[in-house]
Amino acid sequence: MYRTKTCGQLRISDVGQQVILAGWVQRTRKMGGMTFVDLRDRYGITQLVFNEESDKALCDEANKLGREFVIQVEGAVNERYNKNPKMPTGDIEIIVSRLTVLNASLTPPFTIEENSDGGDELRMKYRYLDLRRSNVRANLELRHKFCLAVRHFLDSKGFLEIETPVLVGSTPEGARDFIVPSRMNPGQFYALPQSPQTLKQLLMVAGMDRYFQIVKCFRDEDLRADRQPEFTQIDCEMSFVEQDDIICTFEEMTKYLFKEVRGYDLGDEPFLRMPWIEAMTRFGSDKPDMRFGMEFVELMDVLKGTGEFAVFNDAAYIGGICAKGCAVYTRKQIDELTNFVKSPQIGAKGLVYARVAEDGSVKSSVDKFYTPEVLSNLAKKMQAEAGDLILIISGDDAMRARKQLCELRLLMGERLGLRDKNKFALLWVVDFPMFEWSDEEQRLMAMHHPFTAPKPCDVPKLDSDPASVLADAYDMVCNGVEVGGGSIRIHDAVLQAKIFEVLGFTPEKAQEQFGFLMNAFKYGAPPHGGLAYGLDRFVSLFAGLDSIRDCIAFPKNNSGRDVMLDAPSAVDQAQLDELQLALAPKA
Amino acid sequence: MYRTKTCGQLRISDVGQQVILAGWVQRTRKMGGMTFVDLRDRYGITQLVFNEESDKALCDEANKLGREFVIQVEGAVNERYNKNPKMPTGDIEIIVSRLTVLNASLTPPFTIEENSDGGDELRMKYRYLDLRRSNVRANLELRHKFCLAVRHFLDSKGFLEIETPVLVGSTPEGARDFIVPSRMNPGQFYALPQSPQTLKQLLMVAGMDRYFQIVKCFRDEDLRADRQPEFTQIDCEMSFVEQDDIICTFEEMTKYLFKEVRGYDLGDEPFLRMPWIEAMTRFGSDKPDMRFGMEFVELMDVLKGTGEFAVFNDAAYIGGICAKGCAVYTRKQIDELTNFVKSPQIGAKGLVYARVAEDGSVKSSVDKFYTPEVLSNLAKKMQAEAGDLILIISGDDAMRARKQLCELRLLMGERLGLRDKNKFALLWVVDFPMFEWSDEEQRLMAMHHPFTAPKPCDVPKLDSDPASVLADAYDMVCNGVEVGGGSIRIHDAVLQAKIFEVLGFTPEKAQEQFGFLMNAFKYGAPPHGGLAYGLDRFVSLFAGLDSIRDCIAFPKNNSGRDVMLDAPSAVDQAQLDELQLALAPKA
Repeated sequence: MYRTKTCGQLRISDVGQQVILAGWVQRTRKMGGMTFVDLRDRYGITQLVFNEESDKALCDEANKLGREFVIQVEGAVNERYNKNPKMPTGDIEIIVSRLTVLNASLTPPFTIEENSDGGDELRMKYRYLDLRRSNVRANLELRHKFCLAVRHFLDSKGFLEIETPVLVGSTPEGARDFIVPSRMNPGQFYALPQSPQTLKQLLMVAGMDRYFQIVKCFRDEDLRADRQPEFTQIDCEMSFVEQDDIICTFEEMTKYLFKEVRGYDLGDEPFLRMPWIEAMTRFGSDKPDMRFGMEFVELMDVLKGTGEFAVFNDAAYIGGICAKGCAVYTRKQIDELTNFVKSPQIGAKGLVYARVAEDGSVKSSVDKFYTPEVLSNLAKKMQAEAGDLILIISGDDAMRARKQLCELRLLMGERLGLRDKNKFALLWVVDFPMFEWSDEEQRLMAMHHPFTAPKPCDVPKLDSDPASVLADAYDMVCNGVEVGGGSIRIHDAVLQAKIFEVLGFTPEKAQEQFGFLMNAFKYGAPPHGGLAYGLDRFVSLFAGLDSIRDCIAFPKNNSGRDVMLDAPSAVDQAQLDELQLALAPKA
Repeated sequence: MYRTKTCGQLRISDVGQQVILAGWVQRTRKMGGMTFVDLRDRYGITQLVFNEESDKALCDEANKLGREFVIQVEGAVNERYNKNPKMPTGDIEIIVSRLTVLNASLTPPFTIEENSDGGDELRMKYRYLDLRRSNVRANLELRHKFCLAVRHFLDSKGFLEIETPVLVGSTPEGARDFIVPSRMNPGQFYALPQSPQTLKQLLMVAGMDRYFQIVKCFRDEDLRADRQPEFTQIDCEMSFVEQDDIICTFEEMTKYLFKEVRGYDLGDEPFLRMPWIEAMTRFGSDKPDMRFGMEFVELMDVLKGTGEFAVFNDAAYIGGICAKGCAVYTRKQIDELTNFVKSPQIGAKGLVYARVAEDGSVKSSVDKFYTPEVLSNLAKKMQAEAGDLILIISGDDAMRARKQLCELRLLMGERLGLRDKNKFALLWVVDFPMFEWSDEEQRLMAMHHPFTAPKPCDVPKLDSDPASVLADAYDMVCNGVEVGGGSIRIHDAVLQAKIFEVLGFTPEKAQEQFGFLMNAFKYGAPPHGGLAYGLDRFVSLFAGLDSIRDCIAFPKNNSGRDVMLDAPSAVDQAQLDELQLALAPKA
């Protein structure tokens, strides 16, 4: 037996017990004739004591221990003279009578402390050391608890967790697939699923009624910050439901999770449900951060044509936000904001501001174009008070301008401390458009995916005005992050074929790619719908992480590499030969 | 709202209630002026009644319903005149007042009944219809419950479920990897994990202490019966443990699962632990079916050199089993057994038998070579009684002959009804050899995998006599099926390097392939070990299935194809170009 107790277990009531512990040397300190060793395992830290006077040889051994050595000790639990109230085991120490080194350790390349001196690259290469840091470990513990709670809740609601295959067929819609050559079927490839979307729909056709799965999904995309080529979804689907049934079920789950896993009470009120167009108008985003207000005020009536400022007079959209108490912003601070909105990733042409002075007068960067009355109207419309700063963005393309203003709002929220990581604001965004125009593809694309049902009342418009058709789709948003989303699905083969037609598929292509689903719909498909949560993102929110990486045990970097395993890598020619494949490097 | 109740819910106490149900038409019957419809959903079947007299139009609609139509009905719960005690809802029926067809159905290609008329091929192509059969659905429900119970148990023991990546590096040891070309790293490939073995060991190095994961694994093997290219493991690992700690933990889990999920009490006694060599000697198998005896009796002393039968006199092994009460077997029945052991997949040269007559005399197929005393000794040694049949196999290669006799034992157990699917016999097989010789590779191969620790006392023999070294490995066997297996792992970089050397790796090759693990061992790796269960197989045992396929929602066939999705399939040239790959069909 390697241990009788863990390093997080012993208390004052255990004093006098003989125990065996095992773990890692966190640190050693020599004080006079005493050597103190902090012994660490997953459960905590316990102080070991070696006394030169009582056993010099043993103490000498202890003095040779290096950081991260794995040791086993036997000894008696003793009450500490200097108690440490910050540690659960801070009342006791172990007077060691036997010490065994189970494994030595090289000096780790960075410190195994909450605040490590290791950079990202180094931490990822030695991820097995990084994971020893208690804060990183806590994220994985949280993820474990979170998943258990999800399963507990969904099981209690009659959902069955059903595994769907990882080796599936390639689908052309959506992101790029990872593909897997088949040795037994040379020249053919499996694809890794971007989501089990069609499979879960088939499970509904199969009468499974309520399905879920916590499941790995795969997308071969160029990795923006905080995307991983493999990620985990909480994937759910229900039969004989309407949008309201799904929203109610998963709202209840969300409240349960926040309470059980995060200790956070979301209250009894239902979440807000906001139509997509309203979210875009009020916040310039389909995932508004509702922890704070600073809502958009449209200023077309106040500023367009009311002065000589050509930019506004030509604009398709003029909108502002009011930053409380920011009239004190210096020229330099405002320049920073201007540079931010003009940066390539935001892309605004410029930023107009107006300060409301203590006397109520308004000083603006476009003073010379407007009468004091117009500026006063502006302040009034913005409900700006003395000391406030009004920030205005305009543009030719209303949606684009709103998205720019959204970024500015989020930045100001951050600066004003309105985006508290320990506060959570949830809402449903509903009534999304079915389609969005793709300049690249020169056709309508599905905004969610091609299996999303249109609002029943909009079905007739599929022929006359498809761009105006709304979808029976919904996203769950928390703190400006889309944590989940889904829709009522099409369960009718004829309507499904119609949608493929609108998306520009020929009947033959639709049959080739999605025949298995459309055929299944002919054998008694029930009405159904569902949603999927991004587990990594949901857990990150709970943990207050800036990146999803730290709630993933072995994440990949931005080039899709696992730097610890050094994967991907070259394979033997023999392996390629068996697969009847050849490398074809671009010239 | 599509329904107020499910089809499995209503009882006599609900009579008089107005309800809405939705589901599939299982069957319709017309009797006089009444039409009866059995409405099915996941939860059960409820009888609907339509009365021509009270509403002719509605009854006409009901008469048009076909099998597997999806309908919604509203009506009153009524006490049935002819109650059906076999159905939970058999006391009631619904007097329907409103009928809506939610979706029509083509006539399904096979019957949706427990005993379907669909062949395997057809059932797999229309798996979404096959899954509607209540017995197939029950397997998925069982699997769901089983996994929940596993998670509940392991969580209660402090195990953390931690997801490991699916896109990893290729490893040369073990079976063939599926590989995944990386677009962002052209010419390089990920591999899909055959198991998270090295990753879970790194989690132990990371101090996670107790890890588990219910996880998909992948092997690109030629598919024998009952193998799938992707399968699911319950993968577990613990730190600071010896073999006994692991066996005790998972024995407790197994008893818990049998009780909670299968309602089967395995009792308080610990499972038998049988050394590998004993299992081979007594049962000719490293996974003996212990539901019945019929143990091997070695007959070298009785039959070798005691008569003129050259086959036995030249044999390296002679062994027999005693089939109780089978002396009545006809010549034809015995010929069947002979043909069975001589079939190519068994490969025995022949079968010798001896009948013990009612008077105790022994009649054997090798009578002419032996004296009655020898045959009497044979019967005595076999502990054969009047009416028993002795079956004997011999061979040049003792292990091969034992395996042949094992197959015969299993067949006889089957014939004698000794392999009851509702009885479970569990044991641990321990003390496996570390290595086995591969004729194909002309070198020693790891019997488990190269990370398995040798028995500490055998370490010195790694140089002098590696073939005799025993491993600290263990398999859990149930009813002749290996449901799980594992080992104490090596946690010392030097010993690990030594094992790679014995396996014929150069130090450079070992570093190239497993450097990440051996390096990790240098930073304070704790002693650790674990095991993995085959989930598909474990659930199949619980469900009494002959094939693992029926506890998998969407299994693949023997060519690794998903016939429903028609995967794998060809991909666009553009996709290959992006991956910088070309097809290279064998000439």
